[in-house]
Amino acid sequence: MSDTELTPLAQDLIDFTRSHIPQADTMAIALGSYDGERIVLNAPLQPNINDKGCAFGGSLVSVMTLAGWSLVELALRRRGLDCDVFVAESTVRYLAPVWSDFRGEARLAPGVEWDTFFATLASRGRARIEVAADVPGEEAEPAATMTARFVAKRRSST
Amino acid sequence: MSDTELTPLAQDLIDFTRSHIPQADTMAIALGSYDGERIVLNAPLQPNINDKGCAFGGSLVSVMTLAGWSLVELALRRRGLDCDVFVAESTVRYLAPVWSDFRGEARLAPGVEWDTFFATLASRGRARIEVAADVPGEEAEPAATMTARFVAKRRSST
Repeated sequence: MSDTELTPLAQDLIDFTRSHIPQADTMAIALGSYDGERIVLNAPLQPNINDKGCAFGGSLVSVMTLAGWSLVELALRRRGLDCDVFVAESTVRYLAPVWSDFRGEARLAPGVEWDTFFATLASRGRARIEVAADVPGEEAEPAATMTARFVAKRRSST
Repeated sequence: MSDTELTPLAQDLIDFTRSHIPQADTMAIALGSYDGERIVLNAPLQPNINDKGCAFGGSLVSVMTLAGWSLVELALRRRGLDCDVFVAESTVRYLAPVWSDFRGEARLAPGVEWDTFFATLASRGRARIEVAADVPGEEAEPAATMTARFVAKRRSST
């Protein structure tokens, strides 16, 4: 698959997500970019606001979790693999309030390789992978960070 | 404050939450119960469903986070303390899919005492407290668990 096909593939997944997950739709998430290694999802502040006028913590976790889930799902789709992907565990740090539209970015955690994940999936029909995500802040520091473990399970293994 | 006043106090907070946090409103969270030590928030499956037909992970985190936030907020309001309460860090384990309406329950983490929290808040104007929350599963085991650290900051300290 060429790089020019990555954006439509990611756009299809976000469209699917918004039409099948009502909360992703009310959050109004949109594809920012996807280059195969990193995905960026945008979210407007207004539908994700809290009582203090900044972004609701639940929306920050959701945008990072959806970015991480999309990263893994897209890596599988690019290789034609049909899997159920779900988040198994996550740790989130909320570092600063977010007062404007925001984005969630996800990539593999440092030192983690796709090759190991795909080799395990091929031999066992199931594999886990660690993702690092964040919501960039208004300064150089992130406003929130997440590390999460996702599990992929082959759907049509017999 | 007598125990009979706890339910209206909690109901007021949930009404406030739903009118000021659009995502809490679209999740359709409702008060289950509050006895001063434990709060239960209910959520219907339908607005919180994912593409697989079970509860969206973001909604599971959100209902647990809102239950934890409400537990701390209510403990402060019962003592007439006006604070900003926010979540600083959380670790979530997603243990089993949730195929029906669900609830998030929150209480203090084991070994954690309100007295220490209020003493620190009185002396420093700011204190942290650890909360344990879960989404009960269809069997005896929880479907999701969360431990989270919340911070309260006195609003009108001079």
